[in-house]
Amino acid sequence: MDYKEAIKEITGADGEAMREAREYCDTLIKPLGALGGLEDIAVRIAGVTGKVKNRLEKRAVVVMAADNGVYEEGVAAAPQAFSRLQAVNMTRGICGVSVLAKAARADVVVVDIGLMDAPGTDAVLDRNVKRGTDNMAKGPAMGRGETEAAIQAGFDVAEELFEKGYDMLGTGEMGIGNTTSTSACAVAFLGLDPSIYVGRGAGLDNDQLLNKIEVVRTAVEVNKPDKDDPVDVISKVGGLDIAGLTGCYLAAAYCRKPILIDGSIAAIAALAARLLCPEAKDFMFATHRSTEPSYDITIKELGLKPFLEMEMRLGEGSGCAISFPIIDAACVMMSDMGTFADIAFDDTVLVDIRKEEKES
Amino acid sequence: MDYKEAIKEITGADGEAMREAREYCDTLIKPLGALGGLEDIAVRIAGVTGKVKNRLEKRAVVVMAADNGVYEEGVAAAPQAFSRLQAVNMTRGICGVSVLAKAARADVVVVDIGLMDAPGTDAVLDRNVKRGTDNMAKGPAMGRGETEAAIQAGFDVAEELFEKGYDMLGTGEMGIGNTTSTSACAVAFLGLDPSIYVGRGAGLDNDQLLNKIEVVRTAVEVNKPDKDDPVDVISKVGGLDIAGLTGCYLAAAYCRKPILIDGSIAAIAALAARLLCPEAKDFMFATHRSTEPSYDITIKELGLKPFLEMEMRLGEGSGCAISFPIIDAACVMMSDMGTFADIAFDDTVLVDIRKEEKES
Repeated sequence: MDYKEAIKEITGADGEAMREAREYCDTLIKPLGALGGLEDIAVRIAGVTGKVKNRLEKRAVVVMAADNGVYEEGVAAAPQAFSRLQAVNMTRGICGVSVLAKAARADVVVVDIGLMDAPGTDAVLDRNVKRGTDNMAKGPAMGRGETEAAIQAGFDVAEELFEKGYDMLGTGEMGIGNTTSTSACAVAFLGLDPSIYVGRGAGLDNDQLLNKIEVVRTAVEVNKPDKDDPVDVISKVGGLDIAGLTGCYLAAAYCRKPILIDGSIAAIAALAARLLCPEAKDFMFATHRSTEPSYDITIKELGLKPFLEMEMRLGEGSGCAISFPIIDAACVMMSDMGTFADIAFDDTVLVDIRKEEKES
Repeated sequence: MDYKEAIKEITGADGEAMREAREYCDTLIKPLGALGGLEDIAVRIAGVTGKVKNRLEKRAVVVMAADNGVYEEGVAAAPQAFSRLQAVNMTRGICGVSVLAKAARADVVVVDIGLMDAPGTDAVLDRNVKRGTDNMAKGPAMGRGETEAAIQAGFDVAEELFEKGYDMLGTGEMGIGNTTSTSACAVAFLGLDPSIYVGRGAGLDNDQLLNKIEVVRTAVEVNKPDKDDPVDVISKVGGLDIAGLTGCYLAAAYCRKPILIDGSIAAIAALAARLLCPEAKDFMFATHRSTEPSYDITIKELGLKPFLEMEMRLGEGSGCAISFPIIDAACVMMSDMGTFADIAFDDTVLVDIRKEEKES
């Protein structure tokens, strides 16, 4: 499906299913609202699927792997070759997201959307649009057509997974330098000075942090991205991973499946998707509160709230992986808990108690 | 084991294992500290078990069920019969903790430590010490000997579970009126006015809330609990559930197993256990941030920090049930992630990259 055509067809959450879910939730044997955030998740999932009771058993974290030309400005602590190396390691089950996803019975789907060097293994899906972006400090990171191709590639990957029977996706990324592109997108979309959004990424010292702030400032000044045009922003100061994830969120909305947001990079892509299609937000779920400074502002702009406070900043989709069981918990609450009607009419203990009350 | 004898033998976390765990964690293929809270949990678990790599597969939520005589002061929204009814329903798999624990592959062990009426089913463990406390607004909730017997009963239940092969426990409770006893214990242990700690429980209106505050104030004034003597505090203004949970925490420390804290009631019992035995704290893990007002102050006093922000206030151990997968995640991170040494020496991709670097 062409993502631009899909956007025209996307409608928001099923309000009727959400009302039904809230009403049903209020019949469960617990004080009203006592399961707080779990109830809110359950109601929102009903809005996504149109059903009050859901099982989201088949799930995967989609990891968009890409390189960033801005690496040459000295913005990253890790060697650039790590993007590709870790993309491959993820498929070997030894990275953070690999082991955390496995523990949550989730698959990891790694996509080469823009790595500089081919991974050299079929375990990484080849959807390469461009062998790394250009240096955004000197000009646009990529052309508009390349951005659109990467959004489409992300859309296709997610749509294919949903067609294969996946019930829910998480979003992750691997790309040395991508907190720099994310910060630049945040400046473009949300305003405020780069120093608000730029963090230490995988471990920059003070001088490197100050340099990164200036690189982001330069990138925005040189490229003048149009904040009302997400494709323009991603083209000029974003990345292929961000574009690919943007496509994933749009596909989730189109296929009416829940999609989890990981950290700051996944969040900025979610914001881009919402700017392209406001209804897409209804299908997104915040998970953990990343310590990357752009995260809080981006997720607040999305009107979402994370439920995990783990001070994590790994990326890879690691926060989504550990959040699948929380989504499961919301689902089993709706599917498996008893209702007050059940215990009033079927529970022999209540009958016993009533008998005692009469006798006393 | 007599819990008072056990206290003398309890030693704190294994510092050497914690150092080893932190060092090992820093060799994993991720930026230093990037898995934040998961790393902290993993290191603390090493301190509990003495091992760097852990699997905590067999787990249960222990639910202490008890009635509170202070119910007659109009402090609770639910009928008193619900303590027993829900204790039984938990064993039938239809309560919040039942379905959430099952989803996390955990058992639920429900203990009648102080219900007014016998549950009438063997599915609830009979360790009844007293058929409900007395009304603390008029005098002590129970005698010192009864409190000690309830602590011992909780200790025995947890010790027996660990002896049966359980690797980790969660703590829960069921007892109409137990946020009132918890608030009174908080006033006794931590000072401050009752209005700081008293909340709406399962759903009080404004007048009921003000009444509950005054009941707590009266209970503390009438009984004058000695804040330096946790057994005195629990006897006078606590409950049998709180005493039982206090015993569970002590048993976890004695058996050197991790134990999760649920909400405000479980937290006040954890504080009592720490006051009886400071080293017991090393074996406790905070889980979710309850919305009951005493929770934040109690958990801060314990020096612990919850990782889930779900605005939950169900109790039952529901917050522990949904937190087991997070503990699992910390464990698999240590057991299953690769190290930099692995990828430097064994990873053919890195060899490829190095070959390319040489060639270029």
